Amino acid sequence: MNGDFMKRAIKCSCENVKKGGGPFGAVIVKDNKIIAEGTNLVTINNDPTAHAEIVAIRNAAAYLNDFNLSGCEIYTSCEPCPMCLSAIYWARIDKIWYANTKNDAKEIGFDDSFIYDEVSKPLEERKIPIKQFLRQEGLTAFHLWTQKTDKVEY
Amino acid sequence: MNGDFMKRAIKCSCENVKKGGGPFGAVIVKDNKIIAEGTNLVTINNDPTAHAEIVAIRNAAAYLNDFNLSGCEIYTSCEPCPMCLSAIYWARIDKIWYANTKNDAKEIGFDDSFIYDEVSKPLEERKIPIKQFLRQEGLTAFHLWTQKTDKVEY
Repeated sequence: MNGDFMKRAIKCSCENVKKGGGPFGAVIVKDNKIIAEGTNLVTINNDPTAHAEIVAIRNAAAYLNDFNLSGCEIYTSCEPCPMCLSAIYWARIDKIWYANTKNDAKEIGFDDSFIYDEVSKPLEERKIPIKQFLRQEGLTAFHLWTQKTDKVEY
Repeated sequence: MNGDFMKRAIKCSCENVKKGGGPFGAVIVKDNKIIAEGTNLVTINNDPTAHAEIVAIRNAAAYLNDFNLSGCEIYTSCEPCPMCLSAIYWARIDKIWYANTKNDAKEIGFDDSFIYDEVSKPLEERKIPIKQFLRQEGLTAFHLWTQKTDKVEY
């Protein structure tokens, strides 16, 4: 735990509001050094995936030239939403530090809780309809993958 | 439901394997027309967030110049992982069509199920440690946000 790293993430979140973005910031740390930062750029970049943590992860991976961020920790000004939490898992980040809670976020209009609930529900109970078809055709790519001998696994 | 759109998503997934990427493809449709495509570029771009659906969403939002993709449907060659499912919610896509299941993906080594389980767990039971501190400092950005009169909400 390092207060300076969290204070930097919080500073990014405050500056981002002044720039017209959402009130969220994150930094990624490796070997006790900040290697990447990110802020919520959803409305600035017209990119619904551009949450602070996603932006920081993309920047860190580009900096390290590696999709595997093991050995890194993330300091984020707010508890990650399910998209960002899952991205942290895919990136194999070691540890998560956060300041504001998802309930704090809900109180100012960012309802991550709703998505947390949806992700945990069976498919047929979800708000956005989700339907399967053409599975046999879809499996073609999986067979190609299985047969490929020089693939980069992750 | 339109088989041609799913077949295009599947074709993208197969071509992506041949290019050295993961076996996943997605297309986003608006007004019965494909407006964006995406494939899994994690290893090709060294970006752990570059799943097919995320790439397609970013492309669709850039094409429409809008972070809100309501009115769009997504056809994805595989059931979305929690990162992509949450991104679909944030983007407000109307409907999800998929071919392969998450169990199919698990069988070839992509274990989305593990992340689905983690997202649903209480914080203290999760595999990646997650800890809170400096909440009072963190709330500064939320207060700035609340007070801002010209903010772009979403």
